[in-house]
Amino acid sequence: MSLFITFEGIDGSGKTTQVEFLKSHYAGENFLYTREPGGTEVSEKLREILKSEPLDAATEAYLFAAARRELVKNIIKPYLEAGGVVVCDRYVDSSLAYQGAARGLGIKNVLRLNELAIDGVWPDITFFMDISPKLSLSRKDKRDAFEAAEFLGAAYNGYKILEERYPKRFVRVDATLNEIEIHKQITVVINERRTK
Amino acid sequence: MSLFITFEGIDGSGKTTQVEFLKSHYAGENFLYTREPGGTEVSEKLREILKSEPLDAATEAYLFAAARRELVKNIIKPYLEAGGVVVCDRYVDSSLAYQGAARGLGIKNVLRLNELAIDGVWPDITFFMDISPKLSLSRKDKRDAFEAAEFLGAAYNGYKILEERYPKRFVRVDATLNEIEIHKQITVVINERRTK
Repeated sequence: MSLFITFEGIDGSGKTTQVEFLKSHYAGENFLYTREPGGTEVSEKLREILKSEPLDAATEAYLFAAARRELVKNIIKPYLEAGGVVVCDRYVDSSLAYQGAARGLGIKNVLRLNELAIDGVWPDITFFMDISPKLSLSRKDKRDAFEAAEFLGAAYNGYKILEERYPKRFVRVDATLNEIEIHKQITVVINERRTK
Repeated sequence: MSLFITFEGIDGSGKTTQVEFLKSHYAGENFLYTREPGGTEVSEKLREILKSEPLDAATEAYLFAAARRELVKNIIKPYLEAGGVVVCDRYVDSSLAYQGAARGLGIKNVLRLNELAIDGVWPDITFFMDISPKLSLSRKDKRDAFEAAEFLGAAYNGYKILEERYPKRFVRVDATLNEIEIHKQITVVINERRTK
């Protein structure tokens, strides 16, 4: 049964580690791993533009949406339609939390802007790696411009709003736990949903 | 008095020629000329992506909107606020006609998608260079992939819808007339609006 799984949370919450664990755990099965922004030729070009300079919030939202559109259409949707499991490191919730909440465009506006990009392809499970902005910052060697404390706090608040808005697909994970323990919790949720 | 002028119409309708005439006519005055997509560093990068390969309609709409956002924020809005006249070869109406009408996303959806990009900066005058798709095609040496007859017809129909929707700012120009005659008509409209 196809399943679309996304990982969300502020930087330093351990998303990438957990995706790596899933790769080992489900090795040999029909799991596809991807990330945002990226995953297609056009999306990687957009990723470069996004990483190369600070952009206006709306410009950023459009470029993420364009990259997302390419990924959904060319990679995620076909794989799901073929019955596979897609695991994506960040997806539309990142835009809602970052450009919507943290950069002030508004969650509602950014959601509306993304409608054509996701075209109804919502995650079945969104693991929200919950860690306080303060703890997240202490885990990092340095802060980059996008991850200053205040900004991180605003993105985190965005995620808390989304968690309330999407209780069915949001699965909160205590990201302060031991990473192996987190991995176990995640695979329990995934396996439960796969056998449904 | 500041004035925001855009040129719209299908390819081969003579937009660029008329913009060039305006450059001579108003030489030395505070007129700024720009085009879409382009006009800023980020926008030019996006122009390259847009020109390099056929894209999904929604991806195209996002990239045009991103390029537009950069142009509006960094070039058009500041120049208008300083009291200048901005002349832009294509603007949001091109997205409405091409991605909205011709590529089937819907004018309403594409308009909504562009709200954060234009941020209320609507043209004061939009010269709609009206020429039939058939005549436009006969003027061109070759058709490129984007300009096949059917597609051009759909974009043209989009412009006709916009003309009805925006009667105040749309000024229809008979693009089959002699280009000097067209130029005269255009400068009459511009001068009238500048002295208001």
